[in-house]
Amino acid sequence: MKHTRPPPPARGEHWLYGRHAVAAALANPARRWRRLVALAGHEDEAAALLAAARARPVGAGERLRLLDRAGFARLLPEGAVHQGWALDAEPLTPPALDDIAAAPREGRRIVVALDQVSDPHNVGAVLRSAAAFGACAVVLAAHGAPPESGALAKAASGALDMVPLLREVNLARGLDRLKAAGFWCCGLDEEAAAPLAALDLGPRVVLVLGSEGGGLRRLVRERCDFLARLPTRPPLTSLNVSAAAAVALYELARGG
Amino acid sequence: MKHTRPPPPARGEHWLYGRHAVAAALANPARRWRRLVALAGHEDEAAALLAAARARPVGAGERLRLLDRAGFARLLPEGAVHQGWALDAEPLTPPALDDIAAAPREGRRIVVALDQVSDPHNVGAVLRSAAAFGACAVVLAAHGAPPESGALAKAASGALDMVPLLREVNLARGLDRLKAAGFWCCGLDEEAAAPLAALDLGPRVVLVLGSEGGGLRRLVRERCDFLARLPTRPPLTSLNVSAAAAVALYELARGG
Repeated sequence: MKHTRPPPPARGEHWLYGRHAVAAALANPARRWRRLVALAGHEDEAAALLAAARARPVGAGERLRLLDRAGFARLLPEGAVHQGWALDAEPLTPPALDDIAAAPREGRRIVVALDQVSDPHNVGAVLRSAAAFGACAVVLAAHGAPPESGALAKAASGALDMVPLLREVNLARGLDRLKAAGFWCCGLDEEAAAPLAALDLGPRVVLVLGSEGGGLRRLVRERCDFLARLPTRPPLTSLNVSAAAAVALYELARGG
Repeated sequence: MKHTRPPPPARGEHWLYGRHAVAAALANPARRWRRLVALAGHEDEAAALLAAARARPVGAGERLRLLDRAGFARLLPEGAVHQGWALDAEPLTPPALDDIAAAPREGRRIVVALDQVSDPHNVGAVLRSAAAFGACAVVLAAHGAPPESGALAKAASGALDMVPLLREVNLARGLDRLKAAGFWCCGLDEEAAAPLAALDLGPRVVLVLGSEGGGLRRLVRERCDFLARLPTRPPLTSLNVSAAAAVALYELARGG
C-alpha cells in the first residue's frame, strides 16, 4: 500500500487544523498550546477566539500569526483542509482507563472500543459520533493505532477535545477492567444472530468494533458478553467502521 | 483551502482501485472496462476475477497487466489505497430519475438526496451505507458534486456498482418528480422539532441531507414534507453527513 508521507513537522510542533478542531482545542482547559495561525484578514475572529480560550498557553513568544494560503500550504501536510485555522498544540494526556471505569454511575455510560482500527479518519469520525451521541470515551488497541494528528482531529471536528481517547496495550485486559466495573461488552459482528436493537444492554455498555478487514481478534471477541449485528443486507453487508459506530451509538441513544 | 491535485490520468483512462471496488465493477454487467491491473504474484486471483466478470470489455488489447508496488504508484494518485487492484473502466451511465421514480411499488423504497455535498469520500460512504441498508438510489445536486472517481469508488467499497448514483441539475425539481410518484421527502435538520424515529414516513421515502457547512438550501428545504432531527446532544450536535445518512438509513430499515 502507498501512503502520503508529509515532511515531518518542525521539532516539537504538533499542528491541529480546521475550524472546529482548533476552536474546540482552544476551549479545552486540559489542552496546552503554543501558537494560533489564522488566515490573514481574520484578525478579529482570531482575537475573539484567543480572548475566549481556556486552553493553557505554554512557552513564551508570539501567540498569533497571520498567514496567507501559501503560508498554510508550507505549514501543513499536503491536502490538509485547514479552513484558515491551525493551532500548534501539545497532544492531550488521556485519563487512565480505571478512571473512566470508576466514574460515578449516573445515567447511561457508553464506551467505544476499537480493535485494530488504524485509519486516523475513521478514529476521528468515531470520536465525532461518540461526542454527538454522548459516549464517555473511545478506547483504542494501542498496536497500530494512529497517533493524535491533525488529520484525526479534523475528522473529529472538535470531538478530540470533548471525548477522551485512550490507548490500551492489551485491549482484552482493558475490557476485563471495564467489565469488573459493571460494564457489559457488546461486540459488533455481521455474522451475529441477535440484532443490536433486540438486546437489553443495561446502563454501562462497551461497544466493541473491529477493523473492516480483520474484525474482532479472538481474545477481544471472547471478552464480549454479547455479539450483535446491524440489519444490513446482501450484497453489501459490511459498513465502514465509523458508520457502524454511528449507527450503534444511535441505537443505544435511541433505546436508552 | 488546499487540495491535493494529482496529475491527470492518461487520456481516456479512468481508474478504479481497491479490492471491493474493482471486484464489484467486474461483477456489474452495466460496467464497461478496458484493463485490470493486479499486483505481481496475484495472477491466479486475477484470472479467477476475470473468469467470473460480467462487466463488458471494450476495445482490444491485453486485459490483465501485472505491476509491482512502484508501478501502482506511477499509475494512481498519490495516497491511493489500492490493495493491489486497479481497473481502467468507463464511468457508469446512471438511469434517469423518472425511471427510479416509476419503478414498481414493491416493498419499501428509499432514495437518498444529497444537497451540496462535494467531498467524494462522503458521497462514496453514503453510497456504501445506502447499499447496506437497501436504498434504491443516491441523487446528488449536480453543481459541485464530485465526478465518479477512484477515491469515490474506494470509499463506496463496491456500492458504486450496486446503487445508482444520479446527478440532477435542479435537485428541488427532482424532488418534485419523486413526490409526484408517491415519495415523501424528509429533510434532516438538527434544528427540527421531530426526531426521525417519531415519524411515519410510509413506503416511499426520500431522505434529504445537506452539506455540513451549509445545510439544505431554501428551495430544497421547501420541498420537504417533513423535517427531522437525530438525537444528538451538545456540545457537538452535528454529525458528519455520511454518519447522519447511515443513522437515518438504519432508522428507516429498523422501523420498516
